[in-house]
Amino acid sequence: MKIGILGGGQLGRMLALAAHRLGLEPLVLDPKPGCPAAAVAPTICADYGDREALEELARCDVVTYEFENVPAAAVRRLAESVRVLPGPEVLLQTQDRLLEKRLLRRFGIPTPDFRAVDSEAELRKAVDALGLPAVLKTRRFGYDGKGQRVLRRPGDLRPAWRELSGQALILEEFVDFDREVSVIAVRSRRGSIRYWDPTENQHVDGILRVSRAPATGLAADSLHRVRRWVDALLTELRYTGVLAVEFFVRGDEWIANEMACRVHNSGHWTVEGAATSQFENHVRAVAGLPLGSTRCIEPSTMVNLIGTMPEARSLLSVPGAALHVYGKSPAPGRKLGHVTLTAPDPAEIEGRLGMLTARLGVPSLLEPARAP
Amino acid sequence: MKIGILGGGQLGRMLALAAHRLGLEPLVLDPKPGCPAAAVAPTICADYGDREALEELARCDVVTYEFENVPAAAVRRLAESVRVLPGPEVLLQTQDRLLEKRLLRRFGIPTPDFRAVDSEAELRKAVDALGLPAVLKTRRFGYDGKGQRVLRRPGDLRPAWRELSGQALILEEFVDFDREVSVIAVRSRRGSIRYWDPTENQHVDGILRVSRAPATGLAADSLHRVRRWVDALLTELRYTGVLAVEFFVRGDEWIANEMACRVHNSGHWTVEGAATSQFENHVRAVAGLPLGSTRCIEPSTMVNLIGTMPEARSLLSVPGAALHVYGKSPAPGRKLGHVTLTAPDPAEIEGRLGMLTARLGVPSLLEPARAP
Repeated sequence: MKIGILGGGQLGRMLALAAHRLGLEPLVLDPKPGCPAAAVAPTICADYGDREALEELARCDVVTYEFENVPAAAVRRLAESVRVLPGPEVLLQTQDRLLEKRLLRRFGIPTPDFRAVDSEAELRKAVDALGLPAVLKTRRFGYDGKGQRVLRRPGDLRPAWRELSGQALILEEFVDFDREVSVIAVRSRRGSIRYWDPTENQHVDGILRVSRAPATGLAADSLHRVRRWVDALLTELRYTGVLAVEFFVRGDEWIANEMACRVHNSGHWTVEGAATSQFENHVRAVAGLPLGSTRCIEPSTMVNLIGTMPEARSLLSVPGAALHVYGKSPAPGRKLGHVTLTAPDPAEIEGRLGMLTARLGVPSLLEPARAP
Repeated sequence: MKIGILGGGQLGRMLALAAHRLGLEPLVLDPKPGCPAAAVAPTICADYGDREALEELARCDVVTYEFENVPAAAVRRLAESVRVLPGPEVLLQTQDRLLEKRLLRRFGIPTPDFRAVDSEAELRKAVDALGLPAVLKTRRFGYDGKGQRVLRRPGDLRPAWRELSGQALILEEFVDFDREVSVIAVRSRRGSIRYWDPTENQHVDGILRVSRAPATGLAADSLHRVRRWVDALLTELRYTGVLAVEFFVRGDEWIANEMACRVHNSGHWTVEGAATSQFENHVRAVAGLPLGSTRCIEPSTMVNLIGTMPEARSLLSVPGAALHVYGKSPAPGRKLGHVTLTAPDPAEIEGRLGMLTARLGVPSLLEPARAP
């Protein structure tokens, strides 16, 4: 069985590796020559809109994707001749922060309050309605904190507007949260749904730096409530594959920050820490195979390697460290790999995290992050 | 860093997948077009003796291998210009059952009694010395029970001789064992040694069918003694990589059946069941990286898929089943893939194994095997 993958970044690469293990044949499409997936799977190097490339991909048995920003036209064209999973409707909605929030709310999932902003006057009106601080974001193509500005004072409006205008924007209520938690689910073609343990995320400068699983100290009933929301969304949309929802958690209140209809950085720990990884279960789901257990087998902490690649020897000398290298050239803010630390006891992991961050030269990792 | 791999069967494939994860670049050499590794790594399709192919491989930073029967001349030629690990000396000894047994005995490791056999007269003398039953084997190129005959009665000698003569032979004492247990170790370039939990193996028709880890009911002191033997061998030979030794266990007595200076089928469970798999630790060792923990994180049972490939859907519907498919065409006796069953509780695994074997149509799997 051939599985087409739109996007050959690290997520595409790890999906391809999971597909190989199951004996499935991945075929990747990515416009960047030498993308991370190209080293591990046949890769068509062409624009997403390239007609020939899409025709080749359409000869796969099923097509999935590693990120949301696949051009809508390409996805629609593909979906005419091959099954695209998760379905194009949900993909197109998650490409736009406004549509995404409406989708979440449709299933009762709380989100920060928001206003669409298409003019400076609308921005002022939106700020009047939501108050300050608030966050002005592009509706599309934002990731890793890109395309967003926090407005703290009235004087911040004009420079933020100047910087971001020209694209459709959204103003979002600033949520002062205690913690950020990902809920990652997978639904099979036949409708069975499984959840990995929730993951607590720590961002630095808008980029995910550390994920700890399972997140501790969450009230069982509130997690149960959140999963019922996600159940409803997955079931009603007949969703197939992995879905990640990032929540701001404030006391007992869970507010969805964003969702991703794909495997997610905060689920990388599942390769080592869960009975079945997010990559394998995504592949199983889209290939029409039964899901594997999502049971957590060991507490795990994932640390992204960003900007520069430390020596493998140094990272791997930390006990319980597994290293994943994506094969990208270094650049500021670029995710080049990750390390997953596992141990039978979560307290032990924190000690190992201390050793790892000392080797990375970023001791600040250990401080709790507060910025959105 | 580029890692050359001699042999592109399933072991080469799984080594290549482990190398990818670490961001290393595997390059495989295998004479068979479309070998299992070719789908996951750049593969040179040429004879092992091909001068150009060996020159290309020699441009890697290090070369390793997935099986013992790489031609000695090719290994020697490679070793002149690139580091080959584990070292060619040990490889050349394990290619020959006679030299292998002598090597084991040098380190105090008991083996079945044996005699070199180069004529029918020598065979008769050897049978007089060792008694019947005994096992006549080719000294080289035997695997999966191929190239061997059990001699039970005097009348078995002539037909066995006729069948196997023309090659160097060895007669081995028949060991009536209680259980067969693999000890798998890894040694880093810097000399650190780790062991995975011992694995109990069950063969059917000379082919490994099931491995259970950790093997239970082994006396701690006898396992300790065995590990000291292997320690000595690894250290004195300055061995780098994974080493597997298969033992017949009879009461408290451990008798080495054979050794493999490579990753081994009885260690496949380590992908799911151990903190670091045999594939990853072999790659780490030969690449000069620190070893990962070999700690068992979950009891695991591995079942080989032999001859025909069952439906993936059916296999994966067994709880706790992970599937590995090698991408080979079916043939009688050919290993096409394996399933690893994990569960927090070993008793639960036996129930799952029952479900799996029912799906495979081989309930006899559950009966203990006794044949050598």
